Amino acid sequence: MSQQTAITPRRDENFPEWYQEVVRAADLAENSDVRGCMVIKPWGYGMWERMQSGLDGMFKATGHKNAYFPLFIPLSYLAKEAEHVEGFAKECAVVTHHRLEADGKGGLRPAPSAELTEPLVIRPTSETIIGATYAKWVQSYRDLPILINQWANVVRWELRPRLFLRTAEFLWQEGHTAHETKEEAIAETEQMLEVYATFARDWLALPVFTGEKSAGERFPGAVQTLCIEAMVQDRKAIQAGTSHFLGQNFAKASEIKFVSRDNKPEYAWTTSWGVSTRMIGTVIMAHGDDDGVILPPRIAPAQVVIIPVTPKPDTRDAVLAACHALAAKLRATLYANEPIRVEIDARDLGGGQKSWEWIKRGVPVRVEIGPRDLEKGTLAVARRDRGHKEKAFPTTDEFVAGIATTLQEIHDTLMTRAKALRDANTVKIDSKEDFIAFFTPKNKNQPEIHGGFAFAHWDGTAETEAAIKEELKVTIRCIPFDSPEEDGQCVWSGAPSKKRVLFAKSY
Amino acid sequence: MSQQTAITPRRDENFPEWYQEVVRAADLAENSDVRGCMVIKPWGYGMWERMQSGLDGMFKATGHKNAYFPLFIPLSYLAKEAEHVEGFAKECAVVTHHRLEADGKGGLRPAPSAELTEPLVIRPTSETIIGATYAKWVQSYRDLPILINQWANVVRWELRPRLFLRTAEFLWQEGHTAHETKEEAIAETEQMLEVYATFARDWLALPVFTGEKSAGERFPGAVQTLCIEAMVQDRKAIQAGTSHFLGQNFAKASEIKFVSRDNKPEYAWTTSWGVSTRMIGTVIMAHGDDDGVILPPRIAPAQVVIIPVTPKPDTRDAVLAACHALAAKLRATLYANEPIRVEIDARDLGGGQKSWEWIKRGVPVRVEIGPRDLEKGTLAVARRDRGHKEKAFPTTDEFVAGIATTLQEIHDTLMTRAKALRDANTVKIDSKEDFIAFFTPKNKNQPEIHGGFAFAHWDGTAETEAAIKEELKVTIRCIPFDSPEEDGQCVWSGAPSKKRVLFAKSY
Repeated sequence: MSQQTAITPRRDENFPEWYQEVVRAADLAENSDVRGCMVIKPWGYGMWERMQSGLDGMFKATGHKNAYFPLFIPLSYLAKEAEHVEGFAKECAVVTHHRLEADGKGGLRPAPSAELTEPLVIRPTSETIIGATYAKWVQSYRDLPILINQWANVVRWELRPRLFLRTAEFLWQEGHTAHETKEEAIAETEQMLEVYATFARDWLALPVFTGEKSAGERFPGAVQTLCIEAMVQDRKAIQAGTSHFLGQNFAKASEIKFVSRDNKPEYAWTTSWGVSTRMIGTVIMAHGDDDGVILPPRIAPAQVVIIPVTPKPDTRDAVLAACHALAAKLRATLYANEPIRVEIDARDLGGGQKSWEWIKRGVPVRVEIGPRDLEKGTLAVARRDRGHKEKAFPTTDEFVAGIATTLQEIHDTLMTRAKALRDANTVKIDSKEDFIAFFTPKNKNQPEIHGGFAFAHWDGTAETEAAIKEELKVTIRCIPFDSPEEDGQCVWSGAPSKKRVLFAKSY
Repeated sequence: MSQQTAITPRRDENFPEWYQEVVRAADLAENSDVRGCMVIKPWGYGMWERMQSGLDGMFKATGHKNAYFPLFIPLSYLAKEAEHVEGFAKECAVVTHHRLEADGKGGLRPAPSAELTEPLVIRPTSETIIGATYAKWVQSYRDLPILINQWANVVRWELRPRLFLRTAEFLWQEGHTAHETKEEAIAETEQMLEVYATFARDWLALPVFTGEKSAGERFPGAVQTLCIEAMVQDRKAIQAGTSHFLGQNFAKASEIKFVSRDNKPEYAWTTSWGVSTRMIGTVIMAHGDDDGVILPPRIAPAQVVIIPVTPKPDTRDAVLAACHALAAKLRATLYANEPIRVEIDARDLGGGQKSWEWIKRGVPVRVEIGPRDLEKGTLAVARRDRGHKEKAFPTTDEFVAGIATTLQEIHDTLMTRAKALRDANTVKIDSKEDFIAFFTPKNKNQPEIHGGFAFAHWDGTAETEAAIKEELKVTIRCIPFDSPEEDGQCVWSGAPSKKRVLFAKSY
C-alpha cells in the first residue's frame, strides 16, 4: 500500500513534474506573464538572500569588493571578442528605443524619433563592459590586481524556460578580476572555484566534483573554465558554479594594458566567476523529498517555525506568550555564528494545514505549542529530515540548548544522503556497450530515473564529444583535477587516452 | 590669504563643479561609455551596501519581506494606468528584439526575424508588473496584507545625467503593499515615510522635513505622495524618499480584487515607497567640505583607516603587526550594534598621499602608527569632522575604549551642522517681493549660493504653482504635516490661504 505524499507526482514517477510541483507548493517562485521571466516569491528570495550573505562574506574574506556596472552594453562592445559574441548573440535582449509614443490606435509604440544610434544589449554577462572600465583604471602594475564582484540581474533569452534552472532573466554574482601575471590570474581562478566548492559543502550540504571543462563546454572567450558539478536526485549533473581563466583574450579586446615592473607595455590577465539563482533549483532537486523542499539550515529563511495550537480562546494568550518567549530565546542563540532565524505562524488556520505548509516549504525544525504542552512544560518538535510523524518532546531549555546541534545534524544528514546518492550512482565504465546501457532508460516513452556519473576514458577530440552528446545527450561535465593519469582507451572511439573524465546527462 | 583645499573649486566658488570633483576625488562613481549610466566604484557601492543593510533591517522589523519581479514590463501593462503611462512613457528604454545577427558589414544588428510581438519596457518602476502578480495572489481578505519590498535596478532615460542624482539606470528599493482597507494602506504609507525619516536622521545624519506633495508633484497614478525633503549646502532641497498612497487606482488597473469579510468583491488598497542611489548624492552634498566627502559613520564602508608609517625596513614588521593588532581589537568592538569596520592601508605610497586620499574619501577616523608611536605606546588619531592637522595621541586602549563614542560624536556633529545650515536658511516669507528676492541670485551670470527653504502661503492652485516654477524655478517641496492652520494670503496671487507650504529650488 503506497503512502500518501504531499507532492504529486513523486520523484520516481516524474521527476521534472515533481520539481515544478515542489517549487509551487513551497511558494518559491512562479512564471510571470513576461515570457521566460520569473517572479521570485519571498520564501525563494529568502534562500537567495542567505546564499548572497554566505558568498559575499567569503568573497570579502578573499579580498574582493563589490561594485556596480551598467545593465546596458553597446552592441560594438559585445562584438569585440569573437568567440564571446558568437556565444551570446543568439540570446540577447536588445534595446532600440528610449521613448514611447501614442500609436494613434489608442495604444503605445516605441517612438521612431527616439531610435538609438547604436542599439544596447541587456548584459548577458559583463566581461566586455567591465573590461572597457578596467582599461581606464589600469595604467601601471601598481593598479593591479583589481578584485571586484557584482551582484546583478542578467538576461539570456531562453526558448524553453524553467523556474530557477533556465530563465530569461536571472540573478547572479559575477566576479571580475585583473592581474599582473598569468600565475596570479590562474591562482585567483582556482581560489574562487575552491570558494564555490566550500560554499556548496558548508552552506548547501552539497558534495561536488571539481574540474576543468572541455574546450567544447568552455565559457565563450575563456582559456580555461573550471566548474563544480553536483548530482541531483534524478542522477543528472548540474553545474553549480564556474570560474574562468580568461588569459589575455578580454584584456586584448578591451585594451586593458599596463606598464610592467620592467617598464614595458603589457596586457593584463583576467578572470571571471559566477553563481546564480540556478543554485536554488539545484538545492531543491538535490535535497527535496516527496513531501516538498528540505532546506539546508544555513540557507533556510527561517530555521525554526513555531506553530501556536490554540483550540480554546481562554488559553490563547498564554500559548502565544510562550511562543514569543521561545522565539526570543532562540534568536539569542547562535548557529554557525548567526542568530537562529525563527518565524511564529499565528495565522488563523488549522494546525495541520500550517504544519504541512511548512513541511512543503522545507523549514528545518517545526515546534508546536499548545495548552497541554504548557501544562507539561514541554514542546512538540519535528525535524524536516525525519518522518513527519516523528516528534520529540523536550523542555524549552533542553530544546534551546540543543538547537544549534540539531541544525548541524540536519545539515550533516542532508550532506550524507546527497553523498550516498552520488557515490551509489558514480561508476567507472570501460566499454562502449556498458556506457550506452548506463545512459539509456529502459522505458523510452517515459524514461525512469537512470544513469548517473560515469568516469570513462575520452580520446580528447571534439568529434567524440559531439558524437556522444548527439547520440546519448551525455556531455563531459569536467576533466577532474584529482583523476589520476592512467593508460586507457576512449570509451567511444577506442583511441588511446591518459585520463578518465566525468560524463553525465545534465541540466 | 586663502587656504589650499583638496577640492577645486570650493563649494562657494561653484557648487555643481565641486560636487563632480568630490565624487571623482573620493572614488565613488564615474560615467560609463553608455550614455547616462554610471559605474558605481567600490567605495561608493560600499555606501550603498551600508544603506541597504540599514533600511533592509528596518523594512523587516516592520513586517516586510523581499522578493524579486521581472525587469521587463509588457508595453500594454504600463499603459493600464493613464496618468502612470503619461508620466513614464517619455523616458522608457524599450526592448524590441531578442537576438542579434551579422549585419553583412562585419558588425551586428538586431535580427529582424527576432522582433518581439509586443515590445518590453525596462521597468522605470514596478507598480504595473507587481500589480499583475498580486492580482493572482489575492482572492480573499485573508490573503491581505501583502508586504513586499524589492531591491532592484530601474531605468529612466535621462537627457541630462548627473552621477547619483540623475542617471538613466539607478539602484533602488521599491516597497509594494496591498491592503484590505483604505485606513490600513494610509497607515502603511505614513509608517514607511517615518522609516525613511528615521533612517535619514539615524544613519545619514540628515534632518528632513516631512509632508505631502502637491498634486503637480505627485507620483503618476498616486492619490497622495508623502516625502522627506533635505537641504544640502547650496541650500537647495532634495527629495530623499517618497511613500505613495495609491488608493485603488492600480488595483483597478491590475484587477487586484478580493472577497471581503462581508463576502463582497472589493478592490485592494495599495501603496508603494522607495529610495535610491540618489541618497548617496544627497549625503555628499549635505556633509562634504572643501577637502572632500565626510561620511556619517553608520554608512561609511570603513569607519577607521589605519595607516602604517614605515620609513625604515627594520621597524616595518613591528609597525604592521601593531596595525593588525589594533584592527583586531577594533573589529571586536561594536558601534551601533555592529563590529567597527576597519581598513589597513599598507600600500607602498607616502603617508601624506595616503592620508589625503582618505580625507577626500571621508573616512570618519584616521590612525597613523609609526616607529615612534610604538616607542611611546600611543597612536596619532585624526577625525574627519575636524581640521586635518588636529590630532590626538591616545594609547591603544584609550582609543579602542573610546571609538564608539567618537563615531557617535562625529555623527552628531554632522547632524548638528546640517540642522544649523537648514535652520539658518529656512524662513517665513509673506510678500511676493521678498519671495522673489529670496530666490534670485545677485549675480545672474554665475549664481552664488542663495535662497533656501521658504514657508509661505499658497492659494492651492496649479496655476500659481506653475507660474512660480516657470518664473523662479522654485517648486512646492511639500505641504508639511506639522504646519499649523493659519489665515494668510498666497505669496504669489494674494488669494486667501489656510496653510504655509515649503518652497525651494531643488535637485
